[in-house]
Amino acid sequence: MRIVIDTMGSDLGCGEIVSGALDAVRELGVDVTLVGDAALIRPVVEASKLDAEIVDCPETVTMEDDPISVRSGKKGCSMVTAFKLLRDGKADAAVTAGSTGAAITAATLYVHRIRGVRRAALATVMPVNGGVILVDSGANVDCTPEFLLQFAYMGSFYARSVFSKPEPRVGLLNIGAEDTKGDELHLAAHKLLSEAEGLRFVGNVEARYVTADACDVIVADGFSGNVMLKSMEGVGKFFSAELKKQLSSSLISKLGGLMVRDKLYALKKLMDYREVGGAPLIGISAPVIKAHGSSNARAIKNACRQAKLYTEGHVIPDIAACIDRMKVEA
Amino acid sequence: MRIVIDTMGSDLGCGEIVSGALDAVRELGVDVTLVGDAALIRPVVEASKLDAEIVDCPETVTMEDDPISVRSGKKGCSMVTAFKLLRDGKADAAVTAGSTGAAITAATLYVHRIRGVRRAALATVMPVNGGVILVDSGANVDCTPEFLLQFAYMGSFYARSVFSKPEPRVGLLNIGAEDTKGDELHLAAHKLLSEAEGLRFVGNVEARYVTADACDVIVADGFSGNVMLKSMEGVGKFFSAELKKQLSSSLISKLGGLMVRDKLYALKKLMDYREVGGAPLIGISAPVIKAHGSSNARAIKNACRQAKLYTEGHVIPDIAACIDRMKVEA
Repeated sequence: MRIVIDTMGSDLGCGEIVSGALDAVRELGVDVTLVGDAALIRPVVEASKLDAEIVDCPETVTMEDDPISVRSGKKGCSMVTAFKLLRDGKADAAVTAGSTGAAITAATLYVHRIRGVRRAALATVMPVNGGVILVDSGANVDCTPEFLLQFAYMGSFYARSVFSKPEPRVGLLNIGAEDTKGDELHLAAHKLLSEAEGLRFVGNVEARYVTADACDVIVADGFSGNVMLKSMEGVGKFFSAELKKQLSSSLISKLGGLMVRDKLYALKKLMDYREVGGAPLIGISAPVIKAHGSSNARAIKNACRQAKLYTEGHVIPDIAACIDRMKVEA
Repeated sequence: MRIVIDTMGSDLGCGEIVSGALDAVRELGVDVTLVGDAALIRPVVEASKLDAEIVDCPETVTMEDDPISVRSGKKGCSMVTAFKLLRDGKADAAVTAGSTGAAITAATLYVHRIRGVRRAALATVMPVNGGVILVDSGANVDCTPEFLLQFAYMGSFYARSVFSKPEPRVGLLNIGAEDTKGDELHLAAHKLLSEAEGLRFVGNVEARYVTADACDVIVADGFSGNVMLKSMEGVGKFFSAELKKQLSSSLISKLGGLMVRDKLYALKKLMDYREVGGAPLIGISAPVIKAHGSSNARAIKNACRQAKLYTEGHVIPDIAACIDRMKVEA
């Protein structure tokens, strides 16, 4: 399996991405094509003594660029180049840590959606209860009930194939459990999901129960999905920092803290997005994984693992085969 | 100061609410009027040997009732009765742990909004960084930009008067920091907030930075505000449970855990909504505090403290005095 990796446009720079890609070559047995500034990539690859194809393309789409720039001003950037290699069959999957908006736009424009899929979405795996899949975690701020229905099916196929959950429980992120809760979008989506065939819909799920094993897949519009994800990230960080502060506040707690250090590390790891690595752009016709903008080498290696699992799990053909169920009559 | 307390419709039952109210009498020096089933209330009051006025009204609006029922079928319920006593000047503030939807509807119908305020909102105090105020945390799922502007002013006055923050920083909950982020509602609200006089607007704030001292007031539509609040609650619980699990997984970590127990308890307390007690229905013309549906006695006592601070902080006259700034020309 060959993974094409966009090495530009992330927070920690090209070298960190290349290191992670090389770790993936070493540990996961994948081949990689590295797209970006060859002058930065080559020394890292040579030092590693590993095989990696390099495609020189220093132009970068940044977090500040308008995502639509991938169609015009930035159409020669490393992300677009990587996605075109994927589209043309020169790789089996693509990984980028660049701008989310640009990734969604470029994947839709150059790799294309699966026929019948209305919108690609970010399917983020939350590291709780063996992996809870959140679709959409931020790609689509404005959604229709049909989008949410499609997110539900796509997330369900992903959970089944990659997380070995034969009948994944699908919940709708809402502000109360009752059928009557939420705004118009969520009321209409609830109705569609209740009537959907081949989907194990468990109803509305409040954000506080997502971490309490209420479902395997949580369906959300991109706005509230993103708010949930980032809230969890924020509280995780806050909790870790406060814990550290509390544990260093006296001699006895420092000593106790040392004794529980490994356990606390295990807990921190559990909450760490870098362990998951990335989120597939679900609904795109070839595997594209969006890694966190602040990804370090470990996160990139794990994103390559995600890419491998997503590809081998044939999520995309599963979605394509069921597309008729995922349409709402106008 | 007299606080009228609706003792019905909460998860833990009337007795728990009455106990909390009596703790408030004892510790905060307030007078209380207890509305609910006198047969349940009287024995608890008599056992306490404290003074408390009892208004017999066993009818209850439940979490399952349609909120609008407070206008017709449930117009004689304890919550409505309590709010009417407040409106008629028989009390200075009201506390309820009943249904949020019913509380907002009943407060709007019977106590009324401050003249010019479009919607009352839940102003929840998140127990981080000395109290971050979230408006709206769940009362209004469908919002206009003007609602969000009003939430910003109201939250700001609350932070100033009750939390002694002379120039509270106001952020808009959004999915990215850049001005161009979000859906139509948030783009329009951002513009209004940027132009608002007498408001220290610090721009869009992502959910992950709300716990990192990015602002003193976070403005949200009720849907995403509720998602944020409940996400934080869920992760807090998840983290506590995992911590407990990790610390009891070996003899040495158990011992270490014992040594840090007090510190961990302090941390847990920091994340506990029962410490805050309740959220004012901001925008209502008299102080109404909505306590959590699962409030125990301690939460109710703390809700009474909130009621006292909110009333003494004259948030309501402050809002009324500035109402002209809070209007958007049609």
